[in-house]
Amino acid sequence: MREVFHQSLEDLQSRLVEIAELVTVSIDKATRAFATSDVALAEEVIADDAKIDELAVALDEQAIEILARQQPVARDLRIVVTALRVSASLERMGDMSEHIAQLARLRFPERAIPKGLKGTFVKMGELDVEISRTLTELLRTQDLKFADAIRNADDDVDELHASVFEKVLSDNWKGEAVATVDATLASRYHERFADHAVAVAKKVVYLATGDWHVEEEDIALAVEQQEQLGHA
Amino acid sequence: MREVFHQSLEDLQSRLVEIAELVTVSIDKATRAFATSDVALAEEVIADDAKIDELAVALDEQAIEILARQQPVARDLRIVVTALRVSASLERMGDMSEHIAQLARLRFPERAIPKGLKGTFVKMGELDVEISRTLTELLRTQDLKFADAIRNADDDVDELHASVFEKVLSDNWKGEAVATVDATLASRYHERFADHAVAVAKKVVYLATGDWHVEEEDIALAVEQQEQLGHA
Repeated sequence: MREVFHQSLEDLQSRLVEIAELVTVSIDKATRAFATSDVALAEEVIADDAKIDELAVALDEQAIEILARQQPVARDLRIVVTALRVSASLERMGDMSEHIAQLARLRFPERAIPKGLKGTFVKMGELDVEISRTLTELLRTQDLKFADAIRNADDDVDELHASVFEKVLSDNWKGEAVATVDATLASRYHERFADHAVAVAKKVVYLATGDWHVEEEDIALAVEQQEQLGHA
Repeated sequence: MREVFHQSLEDLQSRLVEIAELVTVSIDKATRAFATSDVALAEEVIADDAKIDELAVALDEQAIEILARQQPVARDLRIVVTALRVSASLERMGDMSEHIAQLARLRFPERAIPKGLKGTFVKMGELDVEISRTLTELLRTQDLKFADAIRNADDDVDELHASVFEKVLSDNWKGEAVATVDATLASRYHERFADHAVAVAKKVVYLATGDWHVEEEDIALAVEQQEQLGHA
């Protein structure tokens, strides 16, 4: 019975890793489609999002099945509830990729990235892809140093997000309304993508520490503790 | 034991209703602050959001406690898991109110609602408040006709959301970049608020029907079934 149960938990974990891998593919394709106005690539991202949604629903069903049949308690219960929360965040990350791809498709054959912001969005896209890869490693290994790396990369995304508004609201912004709308939405989607990754990182920290209410500064603390305990 | 258990479930439900009531107050204040550039009202919304977050965390802790101690199965298990999901959506709805209030505060003493869009945003705000009230009734009564009403009002919000972009991207839009940014973000926040309410409505329909994967068209069907069964 215990063995069956631990098999189910491992299965939940590998499903999360699988979804995170698909999210990484989707944000990578979406940001490339957005940078290069590649409408075929954008279409792929939009089509692939259904797969991410489906896997998230299947994972949720399995988690509820585990709750019903195996009635886990203590740490095991926390793992299952955390899996439900993480799948919801991954699903939303997939939605953000899809929204970015939709912007690229909507403006085609024009370029969706407004003039003067190309470098910023390319950098934001690279950071989101890196965050998604790091998140996959975090889910695979539960090594909290990855949670810390996500939080740091999110700070960089937030800075770029702020710089987009600075640029758009500056006197030398010559973009038309459509460029302003695109910059605003695209920046928000990139920023939300990273935010969801931080939310997942907090949940994994919760799992390691037992503290539901994880603040950003607690991540670094938890990493230290894990290192001291020799888990990392 | 059963009695204690049903008491806990009722307690979960009244906590959800309580949070939904606070969300209604917050979206009502936020949209009024946004329409009238009332910075004091905006500050209230921002301060009150911490209370909503706190209540959502407390509800989650209680739900996990119930899972651990009482190990519910079948419908009872579904109620507890649904409560976890609903609290996450309500928390996000509170965040959307806060974002709308932050826009009002950011532009003060200027008006955040761009010229030519006042009527649209007042209408969107009224719809969001109505949706939030209806959601509270849905959570209180589990009467699925409220789920149907939320879905219909969300369609109206989506139409207004599309009309904002139509306006902003039309040739006669004379707004500066700051007006374009505000219109884009505010419209997105109003639309997301309503989306989250629809997500909650779907979860309540799931609870009534047992089907996890609720599509929008399933809500109307479930209402019909509930009416035929004489529950409504």
